[in-house]
Amino acid sequence: MQQRKKIAIIVAGGSGTRMGAAVPKQFLELAGKPVLYHTIAAFINAYADMQVVLVVPETHFAPAQQVLNSFPAPPPVTLVKGGETRFHSVQNGLQQVPDNAVVFVHDGVRPLLTAALVRHCYEQTLLHGNAIPVIDMKDSVRETNAAGNKAVNREQFKIIQTPQTFLSEQLLPAFALPYDPLFTDEATVVEKLGHPIHLVPGEDRNIKITRPLDLVIAEALLRQ
Amino acid sequence: MQQRKKIAIIVAGGSGTRMGAAVPKQFLELAGKPVLYHTIAAFINAYADMQVVLVVPETHFAPAQQVLNSFPAPPPVTLVKGGETRFHSVQNGLQQVPDNAVVFVHDGVRPLLTAALVRHCYEQTLLHGNAIPVIDMKDSVRETNAAGNKAVNREQFKIIQTPQTFLSEQLLPAFALPYDPLFTDEATVVEKLGHPIHLVPGEDRNIKITRPLDLVIAEALLRQ
Repeated sequence: MQQRKKIAIIVAGGSGTRMGAAVPKQFLELAGKPVLYHTIAAFINAYADMQVVLVVPETHFAPAQQVLNSFPAPPPVTLVKGGETRFHSVQNGLQQVPDNAVVFVHDGVRPLLTAALVRHCYEQTLLHGNAIPVIDMKDSVRETNAAGNKAVNREQFKIIQTPQTFLSEQLLPAFALPYDPLFTDEATVVEKLGHPIHLVPGEDRNIKITRPLDLVIAEALLRQ
Repeated sequence: MQQRKKIAIIVAGGSGTRMGAAVPKQFLELAGKPVLYHTIAAFINAYADMQVVLVVPETHFAPAQQVLNSFPAPPPVTLVKGGETRFHSVQNGLQQVPDNAVVFVHDGVRPLLTAALVRHCYEQTLLHGNAIPVIDMKDSVRETNAAGNKAVNREQFKIIQTPQTFLSEQLLPAFALPYDPLFTDEATVVEKLGHPIHLVPGEDRNIKITRPLDLVIAEALLRQ
């Protein structure tokens, strides 16, 4: 199968106010390294020719550079300034993406993905144009509306993770669309152009660190 | 407002195979006490006149009795034998329920609910006939069907917790219905008789312990 350039756009724009910490959550320590270190390392470890575009607010350039300096060798990472919304941050990152690439868009605060997931997303994207990792819903769910609420079959619903992965020829034209607040993730943007979205199995350990408790959970997952 | 008898049916029928432990998860230790101890204590602490009906497989009567013996004073708990499914276990428990009661049906492996949640469910049930605690969905969600999948607005969906709480005159006739595999929880049974389901705010800490990792999370939540 034809090989492609591999670009991971890691979006780390959160200000961390929900953590109750002065330090944004992507810079908090997890098993002795910043959260963001683990995230970047997972991509670099997946492919020798991986290029990372790290999108952070301009005010976080200094701590982001510190994370990069803590790698044993200078990592293949380009720092890019974030935008007003996630959509605009990804748009900024995409300016670094060449043609004929596979692009991974990943949350900086999901440090526990494995290199195996990165590789599976890449391979599935070559086959299907995109690959969106999902996991099953473990809880009972109700749908609410103006009239009340009703039980739904949770097996029909999947929880979305990242890296949301696309051929550059799907992702680049999609992000030329005008911004729409209904764009909740990259898949919804690409879907707007009519591309079917291909779901692949995600990982239970691929959690998003948003609360102080999530760091405790992440430490426990790393010990497992 | 008129007071009612308060009966908590705590269902602890799981065999614990998912935990990879010989000991079923409701008997595993959490902060020095069995999981089930915490669950029972939360209900007893909520109301002085709370009566608990503990439904366990007959093979777990001995460890369940040990949990009861570990209370400083004999707790107001009746042991009842579980059935083939959750529905049948609750049916067995309901034989202990008098008229004019408020009935809480709760998972034995949700030990971290607060007495405040028990009281809120009671008060809302007096007003609305039932009270089902729910929390917001934190992740993006897609709905799948034979044709593919589509993004859904996660704000329309709520994650269901327990204690699912009902007036006895709603719950007792509902559980006289013939068993239906579509009965995934008590609310779906009561809904079958046409009663509207009243959702109330649940608690993030009110997690269900099904994996070894959940015990680690529960310990961390208890420390907070």
